[in-house]
Amino acid sequence: MSIEQLTQAVLRGEMRAVARLLTYVENEREGTREALTALFPHTGRAWVIGITGAPGTGKSTLVAALAKGYRAQGRTVGIVAVDPSSPFTGGAILGDRIRMRDLSDDDGVFIRSMATRGQLGGLARTTRDAIRVLDAAGFSVILVETVGAGQSEVEVARTAQTTIVVEAPGLGDQVQSVKAGILEIADILVVNKADKAGADNAVATLRMMLEMGHPAMREQMAAHHGRQMRVTAPTVAAPAAPLWVPPVVRTVASEGTGVAELIEAIEQHRAHLTDAHVGAALEKQRLEMELYDRLRATLLARLLHRLPPHAFEEILDQLQTRAIDPQTAVEQMLRMG
Amino acid sequence: MSIEQLTQAVLRGEMRAVARLLTYVENEREGTREALTALFPHTGRAWVIGITGAPGTGKSTLVAALAKGYRAQGRTVGIVAVDPSSPFTGGAILGDRIRMRDLSDDDGVFIRSMATRGQLGGLARTTRDAIRVLDAAGFSVILVETVGAGQSEVEVARTAQTTIVVEAPGLGDQVQSVKAGILEIADILVVNKADKAGADNAVATLRMMLEMGHPAMREQMAAHHGRQMRVTAPTVAAPAAPLWVPPVVRTVASEGTGVAELIEAIEQHRAHLTDAHVGAALEKQRLEMELYDRLRATLLARLLHRLPPHAFEEILDQLQTRAIDPQTAVEQMLRMG
Repeated sequence: MSIEQLTQAVLRGEMRAVARLLTYVENEREGTREALTALFPHTGRAWVIGITGAPGTGKSTLVAALAKGYRAQGRTVGIVAVDPSSPFTGGAILGDRIRMRDLSDDDGVFIRSMATRGQLGGLARTTRDAIRVLDAAGFSVILVETVGAGQSEVEVARTAQTTIVVEAPGLGDQVQSVKAGILEIADILVVNKADKAGADNAVATLRMMLEMGHPAMREQMAAHHGRQMRVTAPTVAAPAAPLWVPPVVRTVASEGTGVAELIEAIEQHRAHLTDAHVGAALEKQRLEMELYDRLRATLLARLLHRLPPHAFEEILDQLQTRAIDPQTAVEQMLRMG
Repeated sequence: MSIEQLTQAVLRGEMRAVARLLTYVENEREGTREALTALFPHTGRAWVIGITGAPGTGKSTLVAALAKGYRAQGRTVGIVAVDPSSPFTGGAILGDRIRMRDLSDDDGVFIRSMATRGQLGGLARTTRDAIRVLDAAGFSVILVETVGAGQSEVEVARTAQTTIVVEAPGLGDQVQSVKAGILEIADILVVNKADKAGADNAVATLRMMLEMGHPAMREQMAAHHGRQMRVTAPTVAAPAAPLWVPPVVRTVASEGTGVAELIEAIEQHRAHLTDAHVGAALEKQRLEMELYDRLRATLLARLLHRLPPHAFEEILDQLQTRAIDPQTAVEQMLRMG
C-alpha cells in the first residue's frame, strides 16, 4: 500500500490503516512525514482529553470508564496511553488487560500505547502525531493517559484541550498533585476511589488549594512561569479568559460511578473554552510549543550531520579531560557545523 | 564582588559564595558562564548520588538520613533537591522542614532546591551546573533528589554516578519502580519504611524482577534502548562491564535503620566502577548527553534570534489555519534562519 493509499484509508477511518500509520509514526518510517502533511488539514476536530495522575490513582480504569461512557453516547474514542504503568501498554499486568477487554472488542474504540523511550521531547512529538492520526481518522474523543509527575508527562498533558488530574485517597498523607506541582495544569480534578476512606479529606484539601489559588495565586504562578521560560517563552500571550475554576469530581471508576458527571464537566470545560473565545489562543500556544520542540530536534540532527568526522568525539575527549568546559565545547561545535 | 572573586570564594568553599553562584546559575545571570568555565577544571572529585522514587516513599527522609550518615564519617554533603514534593524545596510542608532542621544547622551540609520549571531539558542543565558548583566548592558527597516517574527526572538521575531507586510498602498493590519502568536505571534499590507491612513482599518482588532481568533482559533492554535513540544515541559504546547486580537494601530512614548498610552499598558500587574501569566510560556517556542537551538549547536560541521580525508569528498563524503542517513550518524557518 502506498503512502497515498494509506493516508486515504486513514481518512476513511479504516482501523488497520490507522494502526499501520501509528507504527510508522513510532518508528519514524519513511513516508510518515508525507502522510502527516496530507492528514494535517483534516485535523482539529477531535476533543483531546489528557488524563494524568500518580500511579495507584486508578486512572487507567478511569480512562476505560470514560471510553465506555462516550461509547454509550455513540461517540468514537481513541486512546493513547503514554503512561508506562498503564494496562494499555506493553508492560500491562494480566488482570488489568482483562478488565480492558470489552473495550478492545469494540470497533468504535482504538487503543494505542506509546513507549516512554528515546530523547526528551521525542515522546511529546510522537504523541502529538499519534493524536493527529486518530483525529484525521475521525475519532470524536481522544483520551491521552500519562503518569503525572515528570515534566515530559506534563508536556504531553498540555497537548490536550481538557486536562484531568486524578487523585485517590490513601496513597499517603498528602494530596499527590499538590506535592508534585501539577495542580496548576488541571482543568478538572477527579478524586477517584471515592468510596474509600479519606476521600472526603482529599476533596476538601483540593477545594482548599483551589480557593487559595484562585485567582491571585494562579496569576502569580502564570507570571512566574512566563518569566522563567525566556527564549522559548510563548510569544502568544495567555488569553485573558473569564476564570475557569476546576471542578472537583468524585468517581469510583471501577463501578462507573461519577463518570457521567465527569463527562458533563468535560463538556462544560469545552463550552467554556468556546464561549470565552480562548480555545484558539490556547491552541496557538500548543502549536508554538510544538514548533520549538521540533526545531530543537531538527537543528541538532542537522548540526551533527554537518560536523567533520571525529570532531564530536575529539571535543568529547577534551571535555572529559577537562581541557574545555561544556559551553566552550558547544561553541566549538557551532563554529564547525 | 566580581565573578573572578566569586569563583575564588567558591573554590575556597565559602558557603555564601556557593549560595550566590547557585542563584546565578538558576537565573542564568551574566557572568555565570565565566564562573562555570573557571570552576570546571576543579570538578569531578565529588561522588554524585541520585535518589529517586515515587512520592510517599520517604526519599526525602532517606536523603536526610544519608546526609547525617556521611556527616558522621566526617564527609561534607551537598544536597540538590529537584523533586517538587521534597521538603527541601520551597513548597515544603512545615513538619518536614522541622525534621530537616538539624541538617541546615550543620556547616558541612549545603541544601539547595531547584524548581522544576521552564523548558524540558533546562532542569537537567541547571542541575548539572549546580552539582559542579558544589563539586568545585569541595563537597565530598552530593545527593540529588528527584521524583522518579518522568523522563526528565530520569535524565537528572542519570547525571549521578550512583543511582538509588526508593520503594516503600503500602503505596498500592504494585512495586512502583517496576510499573514506572525506572528499575533499569537503579544501581541500588532501597525498600524504605521496611518496618511496615508488605516490606518483605516488596523486597521479594524486586529481587525477582532483578533475577528475571539479569543478565539477558538487561542486555536486551540496552540494545532496545540503543536502537531507539537514533541521531542522539551515544557514540560512546556502553562499557562491557563485569555485571553489577543492584542490591536491595532495607531502611527505616526516619529512625536511621539500614543507612549504614546503604552507605556501604554505595561504596561497593563506587569500588565496582573503579575496579571495572567503567567509571570513565560512563562519565563520557553523561557528558555526551549533556552536549546534546546544550546544543539543542543553544541552536534554538540562535535560530530564533536570526529569524526576520514577525516570521515566527506568521508561520504560527499559517500553522493554526492548517495552511501548512508543523514539519513544513520547521523547514521554512530553517531556510530563513
